[in-house]
Amino acid sequence: MAFTLSELAQFVDGSVVGNPDHLIEKLGTLDDADGSALSFLANPKYRNKLDSTQAGAVLLRQAEHAPLVNNAIIVANPYLAFAQLTHKFVKRAHTWTGIHDSAVIADDVVLGENVRIGPNVVIEKGVVLGDEVEIGASSVVGANVRIGNNSRLAANVTIYYDVIIGDNCLLHSGAVIGADGFGFAPSAQGWTKIMQLGAVIVGNKVEIGANTTIDRGAIEDTRIGNGVIIDNQVQIAHNVIIGDNSAIAGCSAIAGSTQIGAGCTIAGGVGIIGHLTITDNVHITAMSLVSKSIDKPGSYSSGTGLEPTEKWRRSAARLRRIDEMAKQITTIEVSVNKLTQTEGKD
Amino acid sequence: MAFTLSELAQFVDGSVVGNPDHLIEKLGTLDDADGSALSFLANPKYRNKLDSTQAGAVLLRQAEHAPLVNNAIIVANPYLAFAQLTHKFVKRAHTWTGIHDSAVIADDVVLGENVRIGPNVVIEKGVVLGDEVEIGASSVVGANVRIGNNSRLAANVTIYYDVIIGDNCLLHSGAVIGADGFGFAPSAQGWTKIMQLGAVIVGNKVEIGANTTIDRGAIEDTRIGNGVIIDNQVQIAHNVIIGDNSAIAGCSAIAGSTQIGAGCTIAGGVGIIGHLTITDNVHITAMSLVSKSIDKPGSYSSGTGLEPTEKWRRSAARLRRIDEMAKQITTIEVSVNKLTQTEGKD
Amino acid sequence: MAFTLSELAQFVDGSVVGNPDHLIEKLGTLDDADGSALSFLANPKYRNKLDSTQAGAVLLRQAEHAPLVNNAIIVANPYLAFAQLTHKFVKRAHTWTGIHDSAVIADDVVLGENVRIGPNVVIEKGVVLGDEVEIGASSVVGANVRIGNNSRLAANVTIYYDVIIGDNCLLHSGAVIGADGFGFAPSAQGWTKIMQLGAVIVGNKVEIGANTTIDRGAIEDTRIGNGVIIDNQVQIAHNVIIGDNSAIAGCSAIAGSTQIGAGCTIAGGVGIIGHLTITDNVHITAMSLVSKSIDKPGSYSSGTGLEPTEKWRRSAARLRRIDEMAKQITTIEVSVNKLTQTEGKD
Repeated sequence: MAFTLSELAQFVDGSVVGNPDHLIEKLGTLDDADGSALSFLANPKYRNKLDSTQAGAVLLRQAEHAPLVNNAIIVANPYLAFAQLTHKFVKRAHTWTGIHDSAVIADDVVLGENVRIGPNVVIEKGVVLGDEVEIGASSVVGANVRIGNNSRLAANVTIYYDVIIGDNCLLHSGAVIGADGFGFAPSAQGWTKIMQLGAVIVGNKVEIGANTTIDRGAIEDTRIGNGVIIDNQVQIAHNVIIGDNSAIAGCSAIAGSTQIGAGCTIAGGVGIIGHLTITDNVHITAMSLVSKSIDKPGSYSSGTGLEPTEKWRRSAARLRRIDEMAKQITTIEVSVNKLTQTEGKD
Repeated sequence: MAFTLSELAQFVDGSVVGNPDHLIEKLGTLDDADGSALSFLANPKYRNKLDSTQAGAVLLRQAEHAPLVNNAIIVANPYLAFAQLTHKFVKRAHTWTGIHDSAVIADDVVLGENVRIGPNVVIEKGVVLGDEVEIGASSVVGANVRIGNNSRLAANVTIYYDVIIGDNCLLHSGAVIGADGFGFAPSAQGWTKIMQLGAVIVGNKVEIGANTTIDRGAIEDTRIGNGVIIDNQVQIAHNVIIGDNSAIAGCSAIAGSTQIGAGCTIAGGVGIIGHLTITDNVHITAMSLVSKSIDKPGSYSSGTGLEPTEKWRRSAARLRRIDEMAKQITTIEVSVNKLTQTEGKD
Repeated sequence: MAFTLSELAQFVDGSVVGNPDHLIEKLGTLDDADGSALSFLANPKYRNKLDSTQAGAVLLRQAEHAPLVNNAIIVANPYLAFAQLTHKFVKRAHTWTGIHDSAVIADDVVLGENVRIGPNVVIEKGVVLGDEVEIGASSVVGANVRIGNNSRLAANVTIYYDVIIGDNCLLHSGAVIGADGFGFAPSAQGWTKIMQLGAVIVGNKVEIGANTTIDRGAIEDTRIGNGVIIDNQVQIAHNVIIGDNSAIAGCSAIAGSTQIGAGCTIAGGVGIIGHLTITDNVHITAMSLVSKSIDKPGSYSSGTGLEPTEKWRRSAARLRRIDEMAKQITTIEVSVNKLTQTEGKD
């Protein structure tokens, strides 16, 4: 793959400063790019790297930086332009095309045009696949699942029955969509399972990371909005609803029936307990526990700062006594006030 | 599926108030149910919803509430009755019956009656499956595994060799039972692997969630008691022992050789370090870290409350200095005591 | 399997005290071992168990302890010797040898000597497998992957295209290597995916636990050093670099572009945010959040101690007010200083 700078500039609606015929063969970081690579300056604080980069060209926001580099493409948003250009440079190596002989597909499955089904895939009855759908090797698609146009399952994905996946979705390996929600009623004989009668409805342009799990609803459905991006090893419990374009980083977990608004960002390792409502544009920092609903946009956090373990032990021990400490302060305050008054009276 | 109220009442040992022939086609929440749906009032604090619900009938504890709704079934425990009734309304769609042609099954495998084995399943030598066992598509059952009557593996489950699964268990997709425990001896040449010679023994009526992992023991076995319920993405390390009817929510992790009692509930995202003993009926709240044994039943927690990130930063910074703060208080206290005594002497 | 004590002593470079012909059939703990079992005393604090153990022989560091037990093997490092001996007692039951008929293997795949490929494995084009490589049932190996000599994939492992795995590695079931890193550029139209153009390079003698995920790099590669051991359900994001012989316990997560040094130990449930540098020989305790780079070896922690939930609620409420508390203390201190000075003037 090789493109001229002018071809790439056109693709991202930018303008070339320098040689429009310069050939770009790959993308690279400012530190590591060579003359055949295009790099980008997204964050102005790394501006000083422009002096030393060997990149053949750099995506820049400000034209005045262009003289610092070999060649440049000036765009409104270099990071976004870079993101768009990665699609020009990705290689999608297909070993097999069409429907592999080893796939096991129920008789009544409806396949769109140009569907690609890998080896050892299993597709149960009643499934409907849109156009250009791709099902990776060894994935299992349960009965009556519907998958929209251009959606893609990597290898070893599992989708339980009745789940609906929208258009332009990408599900990574090990993802499990539609397993039973964790619902049990306590009784004298132990836990009685509540059969999970809902499904999972995934919107359009959703990405679901490797080994992420999204459970089916108990009665109603679990719902993932359009444009939602979900990283690896995320757990989404039954009846959760996630608003459009929210992002959830790795290893976060959202407990049952919680509703997340649109445009939220949930960092890694976050826990959100059940039956909460989180409004739009809420941002939760890494490993925070959200235990109450949030009705005001903004950034929220919990947890404590990292310390050397010995010092941390003392802090943690003191924290255990913080209630007594607060009472002690109040007692002292009373004494001091009394003394001050006495003093005043002298 | 449709049942008369009297059929359903009989199933849950309840009594009908209203029309015993009213047809119920589905279950629903008080908010969303229509005339063909049965709902339930489990928590009396939602009693006011009875006035507005459109449900065809409602499971109630107290007969005096029946006049508020269209029809009612009076039972001792509405939530439990609801759980039992979900089993009447679940549809289990089987695309294939019996043993699928594409399954690869070793010659000496012993199959019980009415075993159902899905496409592309792999069953290694020495395996014994009880009656009515169901193995989902693409699951792999290692050598010498035994699975009891009525137990069911969803698609893409992996069970390593020598593992024993009891009766009436349900394992969800992506679960991995019997991978090596994380045991290594440090040496001058790096880590020397300790081969994990134990197995995993899972009791009866155990549910194991999607992408949950339970490692095999180092020398002895890892043991999961009867009636234990485990959510998605839980990690149970080698030689852990879990008592009967304990419940473990999503993304929790229990480190090696820890013993959990019976009737415990471990909320989501909890960590329990290794070699601890947790007594019966202990409850751990979400994302707590258990770093000491617990010998007294009750509820335990760690962590800090959620705050707006800016305020949280100040709190976290102050917490780092809590030890100095405590010393400062003591110093002030000494001064105040001295002043008070001096004052007294005046 | 049965070995004489002298055979085993020779294997671990130790010397027998007692009967060199005593037959050992298995390994056991000091508590549970019987006369046919070999046990070990790794930690001198359990020395008192030597009096009561029924073990046929015990691995000991100090010869003077030998009279306390039936027989002994004296070695420099009993735990390491035990680790080495587990390799003598493991049974590897192979149901199928060679390349199973049901495996789907692209035409141009290069197979080393004595390769073992299980049922329903899928190997895409351009793959190169070294000698003695073993691919477990239903695993999927993407295009152009290279796997070094003696490396082993358990069942249901997924490796995406272009990933390189070194020699003597072991990957457990459900592991996913090379899925897309979580990279998206925000735009007015939502998230624009950044295609992940790098790969994953795994060194030699690396163990990767069940359901662990290691994402491919955005531009450069994600790199795992030699001798690294990774437990279950660990998440390693794009462009992370992990130094040789570091160990990462279950459910930990390392965010994008972070570099971990050599010889580090990361306990379970730890989170390390992105773009950090952690130097060699750093140890992080369970469930800590690392939010800054660490340039000094040592042990680090965050979080709070476990408390009964009611007491914890009060502590957490007080902690929310710690900033006010600190200001209150300062105010009191000023008053007291003033009083003390006044007092001095009297």
